[in-house]
Amino acid sequence: MDSINVFAPNTVANVGCGYDVLGFALEGYGDEVIVKKRADSQLVIDEIEGADLPTDPKINVATVAISAMLKSLGRTDGFTLKIKKAIAPGSGLGSSASSSAGAVFAVNELLDRPFNPTELVAFAMEGERACSGVAHADNVAPSLLGGFTVVQRNEPLDVYKIPYPRELLAVIIYPHVVVKTGDAKRMLKSEIATHRAVEQSANMAGLISGLMSGDFDRIGRSIHDQIAEPIRKSLIPYYDEVKKQSLDQGALGFNISGSGPSMFAFTNDPIIAENIRSVCSEIYAKKNIRATSFVSPIYPEGVQVI
Amino acid sequence: MDSINVFAPNTVANVGCGYDVLGFALEGYGDEVIVKKRADSQLVIDEIEGADLPTDPKINVATVAISAMLKSLGRTDGFTLKIKKAIAPGSGLGSSASSSAGAVFAVNELLDRPFNPTELVAFAMEGERACSGVAHADNVAPSLLGGFTVVQRNEPLDVYKIPYPRELLAVIIYPHVVVKTGDAKRMLKSEIATHRAVEQSANMAGLISGLMSGDFDRIGRSIHDQIAEPIRKSLIPYYDEVKKQSLDQGALGFNISGSGPSMFAFTNDPIIAENIRSVCSEIYAKKNIRATSFVSPIYPEGVQVI
Repeated sequence: MDSINVFAPNTVANVGCGYDVLGFALEGYGDEVIVKKRADSQLVIDEIEGADLPTDPKINVATVAISAMLKSLGRTDGFTLKIKKAIAPGSGLGSSASSSAGAVFAVNELLDRPFNPTELVAFAMEGERACSGVAHADNVAPSLLGGFTVVQRNEPLDVYKIPYPRELLAVIIYPHVVVKTGDAKRMLKSEIATHRAVEQSANMAGLISGLMSGDFDRIGRSIHDQIAEPIRKSLIPYYDEVKKQSLDQGALGFNISGSGPSMFAFTNDPIIAENIRSVCSEIYAKKNIRATSFVSPIYPEGVQVI
Repeated sequence: MDSINVFAPNTVANVGCGYDVLGFALEGYGDEVIVKKRADSQLVIDEIEGADLPTDPKINVATVAISAMLKSLGRTDGFTLKIKKAIAPGSGLGSSASSSAGAVFAVNELLDRPFNPTELVAFAMEGERACSGVAHADNVAPSLLGGFTVVQRNEPLDVYKIPYPRELLAVIIYPHVVVKTGDAKRMLKSEIATHRAVEQSANMAGLISGLMSGDFDRIGRSIHDQIAEPIRKSLIPYYDEVKKQSLDQGALGFNISGSGPSMFAFTNDPIIAENIRSVCSEIYAKKNIRATSFVSPIYPEGVQVI
């Protein structure tokens, strides 16, 4: 096999109480990454569709991630990449993570699978380090593994999937405003009240047990965040209104996706999902803010060959 | 039915990362509460075996809890109680919670079950308020419901059981030194580092998913506490040594039970359990500190009629 074409899903990180820990994969939105073997030992990005991103292999997250993987194997293979992005970076939907995840998955296939998908997470994280300064796994893990993932620890890396009810739907609302992940990180406080930390882990207990037992009400009762949402919501126009309208429409829970500006709402009812999507996109239409919105099941699989 | 005899298990609260949220019930250790209907409307404590506790019904946790329950029903029934305690208060094994849980369960039976066990938690919490000043549920919930319980929220009360692997064993080590719960609470800091709060909820994700999927290694990797253990361990003599020896013997995880001085270790191997128990009790024997130690499965049921 000299060439491969993969789909790497977009993802929602944090998931309310799961700040810096949880993430899930979206269906139908993600990067398509086409990778071809080269005769020489160069990494070349031929084309990036759907976003204005650097093609310098020393900077682009996909080639940085591939380099980390090749280095660990002690190999110097060359590859040419073409990347088609469904969603541009800066959305809060793990755009850069999808490129890194797709790239390392594709190269791993072309090299006859020296690694399993969980092992690939560490290499894809190097792509995240290249674009945000921090090698976090909360988007690359769900993109590579699919479903809901827990990043329990970074060193040593402890990442795994957890079961969830297949009826769960995510409504994504993405107002096209710029939120820099770095700024969103710096805004957060270095300390929080101990009782807030207890609430955060109590809600984590609720979300994990709710997902694993298919208890939709408990999932909804657990989608609260004591760390990022109270601060970052100020970066997202009309956040409180969009959240209130979503909950009024019957959303189980609502919160910021990653560091925003995208937001997600959960429901297990397709009609409610469409109502939430429609009401929220109307809010932004009235304010003349361009917004993308869609309803997605949780994508059960990670990166797939297409 | 005019009289009833119930067993209310002792419990371990906090469970490492589950500070103020998680608890589990122990098998074979707990209070026996015998309750008899009276012709008048008095609450009378006839006898308390195994601990020197007040029999004044306005102060004793069992009668305070019964009073809260009767008040909510608008009733003025009278009962006579006899309480046999396996473990005295101040152990960190939920001694007062067992008395409250047993008392409200027994009265509920004698009144033909106006409440289900989950509803009884709120009344038993009033017993906790009477002895510690705070109406917390992390011991009364596992005593009433059995198994592992989550207290996700206090107002409105959101309490439930979560599945766990039946092979899990708790080794309990109880050095007979005095730790006042109130002091142990006051020592804690009102703020913690945000990254510590993230670690706490990441470990909560690991413990809940480990328990629900029967992954013993993951359970072990999750038994860490960022809030109470770093501070409270100073109240427990030779804590670090006892913990190290337990882990060296193969304990999956080790932490403080409640606010101490009792400690628990987890294992799924009965031989390792006995080794941990034996090594830890030797440490205290050598130091001339009286200590009780035992191995217990998780008690799957809450308060039971005996």
